[in-house]
Amino acid sequence: MTDSNRWLLPEGIEEALPPLAERLETCRRRLLDLYHTWGYELVIPPLIEYLESLLTGTGHDLDVQTFKLTDQLNGRLMGVRADMTPQVARIDAHSLNRDVPTRLCYMGTVLHTRPDGFAGSRSPLQVGAELYGHAGVDGDVEMIRLMLETFRVCGVQDVFLDLGHVGIYRCLAADAGLDPDAETQLFDMLQRKAQPEIGAFLASLNLSSEARARLAALAELNGGPEVLDEARERLAGAGDEVARSLEVLGDIAGAVQRRYPDVALHVDLAELRGFHYHTGAVFAAYVSGHGQELARGGRYDDIGRVFGRARPATGFSTDLKTLVRLSAEPLATAPGGIFAPPDGDDALDAAVETLRAAGERVIQGLAGQDNDARRMGCDRILVRDSNNQWNVTEV
Amino acid sequence: MTDSNRWLLPEGIEEALPPLAERLETCRRRLLDLYHTWGYELVIPPLIEYLESLLTGTGHDLDVQTFKLTDQLNGRLMGVRADMTPQVARIDAHSLNRDVPTRLCYMGTVLHTRPDGFAGSRSPLQVGAELYGHAGVDGDVEMIRLMLETFRVCGVQDVFLDLGHVGIYRCLAADAGLDPDAETQLFDMLQRKAQPEIGAFLASLNLSSEARARLAALAELNGGPEVLDEARERLAGAGDEVARSLEVLGDIAGAVQRRYPDVALHVDLAELRGFHYHTGAVFAAYVSGHGQELARGGRYDDIGRVFGRARPATGFSTDLKTLVRLSAEPLATAPGGIFAPPDGDDALDAAVETLRAAGERVIQGLAGQDNDARRMGCDRILVRDSNNQWNVTEV
Repeated sequence: MTDSNRWLLPEGIEEALPPLAERLETCRRRLLDLYHTWGYELVIPPLIEYLESLLTGTGHDLDVQTFKLTDQLNGRLMGVRADMTPQVARIDAHSLNRDVPTRLCYMGTVLHTRPDGFAGSRSPLQVGAELYGHAGVDGDVEMIRLMLETFRVCGVQDVFLDLGHVGIYRCLAADAGLDPDAETQLFDMLQRKAQPEIGAFLASLNLSSEARARLAALAELNGGPEVLDEARERLAGAGDEVARSLEVLGDIAGAVQRRYPDVALHVDLAELRGFHYHTGAVFAAYVSGHGQELARGGRYDDIGRVFGRARPATGFSTDLKTLVRLSAEPLATAPGGIFAPPDGDDALDAAVETLRAAGERVIQGLAGQDNDARRMGCDRILVRDSNNQWNVTEV
Repeated sequence: MTDSNRWLLPEGIEEALPPLAERLETCRRRLLDLYHTWGYELVIPPLIEYLESLLTGTGHDLDVQTFKLTDQLNGRLMGVRADMTPQVARIDAHSLNRDVPTRLCYMGTVLHTRPDGFAGSRSPLQVGAELYGHAGVDGDVEMIRLMLETFRVCGVQDVFLDLGHVGIYRCLAADAGLDPDAETQLFDMLQRKAQPEIGAFLASLNLSSEARARLAALAELNGGPEVLDEARERLAGAGDEVARSLEVLGDIAGAVQRRYPDVALHVDLAELRGFHYHTGAVFAAYVSGHGQELARGGRYDDIGRVFGRARPATGFSTDLKTLVRLSAEPLATAPGGIFAPPDGDDALDAAVETLRAAGERVIQGLAGQDNDARRMGCDRILVRDSNNQWNVTEV
């Protein structure tokens, strides 16, 4: 490795320079302020944890995405968080352990072993919110609303929303008696909406014709909210749990459409990719021209159980770097500022201090910089008048 | 591992819950705003980098403190940053590559393999500022001032300041012709101020009596700024570079005392511990009752060279978690807020939106929570009057 390429960063690992870093900080503040006004309290989970607490209950996909480290103090395996949601669930279940509904939000860098998910990055700046301790539809609706407000605050426009329910496929697969291998194979085909392949595969299994028809229907049950009416008919014989899940989706769709009539809503009963620990209604947001989903969330009522306390839970998360990249707001131009000449006196020091306390950006000139105001990006300068007073004037 | 201890965090790895997380965010904003008003631009270096760019030029200590990861995309070794200063130096030298003095600041979590430095943590929240491209004393003074302002803004009181110069020991050791082994051994004794041991060790070496006397003097040259006068006498024959270094320290001490007459200033020409890549004047800050230094900084004019561009540089860094722990400001009490009853109408939605837009914290009640305002930590509630208007009243 030569001097000239020593600075190359690993693939999918980014740094943020001015003015992008400034914009990230601005959006960070807007979002945490937004979540505060909705009653969400900030928590800061650790960057690394023992693998058991980081991965328990989250499934294989997250394990593969997690960088492993050995704790030199005791030889145990630790992981660098690849997803903060399970950490926040641990905090709700164990560290806080409250008996009322609890609203938490978080913001921090996560690492992935491979480029995946949001924008092919391996170091998203994950931000999200979670609501624990309430099983009702109004919790799901609150999360979707807060996700949409998140986009608004960051200047991301023309979002469309995908709505699904992981319980429906699981229910149909269990009722049909699919073994885990068959369930996984069919799941993969459903993601690809490979209808001829699905038909042939289902025909090869020993299923009742009703069970087969319902599983085949899943690949076709996607489109506008009217798909839910069609689903009620085609999945009518699938039992109470499927009927309840469809009712939940209908309630959520209605409440979101009432408040956000301009957001395009898409229902897809087979789209389950990327939901590692979810159990109920799930959702994802997209913008046109950006292939990956922008944010993702849903209900995961089981995850706290591994920490000794199962509570209903729903939430969403997104990547602040992606939001800023897709924002319609232009990046800030040069920040400007006031140049203070070098070799000043106590009066200059006092003038500089007053200006800074008022929020002004003041660059203190260094020895030899007497005429450097413009080179230092300043549009104003402190000048001493005939009464030995320091005044701000245009450069 | 049982359910009940699955939540245990590794030693020295902390999470921040409310209200501590809120305080960290508040201090984060105050500091970045402070640095902005001083003309320091925010940069966000990556959490991981290839080891060559992370460790080149930084020395063995940082290597030992750095967690190593294998990049699964190409098998190369990466490290999790243990110190952000070399990353920011790389950004100045390569990514920005400006020809004027450049002021940068940063804030982020670093990881250490072993508890060490700030407060025995293995995951400090490092924050700091760096000034590149100017070799003069006024740069060093600006860094010390900004470090002291950092403490003020976070409510940390009764700070004292240690001032030294890593060039002086290096010069004396080189003039005396010490080999690297002897230099390291003597360095260790000087840190411990083990004077009899130092005398015996120096006597065992083949040195001129002047060189021996000057090296022995280092262990005694610590105290108030008047130590610099004594140093000028006792190190008089050590050559121009030592004399210049003492002059630099005198100038810095004078400028700091003029602006911060209340800050206790301590000079120590042998205290060099923890300065991995520094080359000139160095400083550290302490508060009584807290054994580790609170912040540390100084000049490191060489570090950019390994990235193809050596620029003069000076800076400081500290740990936000330690500052918050040592702050004299009390933590916030409960945040309070306004409770909005469940099952509202469009008028309630509009009232909630207006309150939130004005910065109020509004908790939306969920199904079944009609009388939960107090349990949800709210001190006010939205109530519908006889005209169907929603008004805020005390609970």
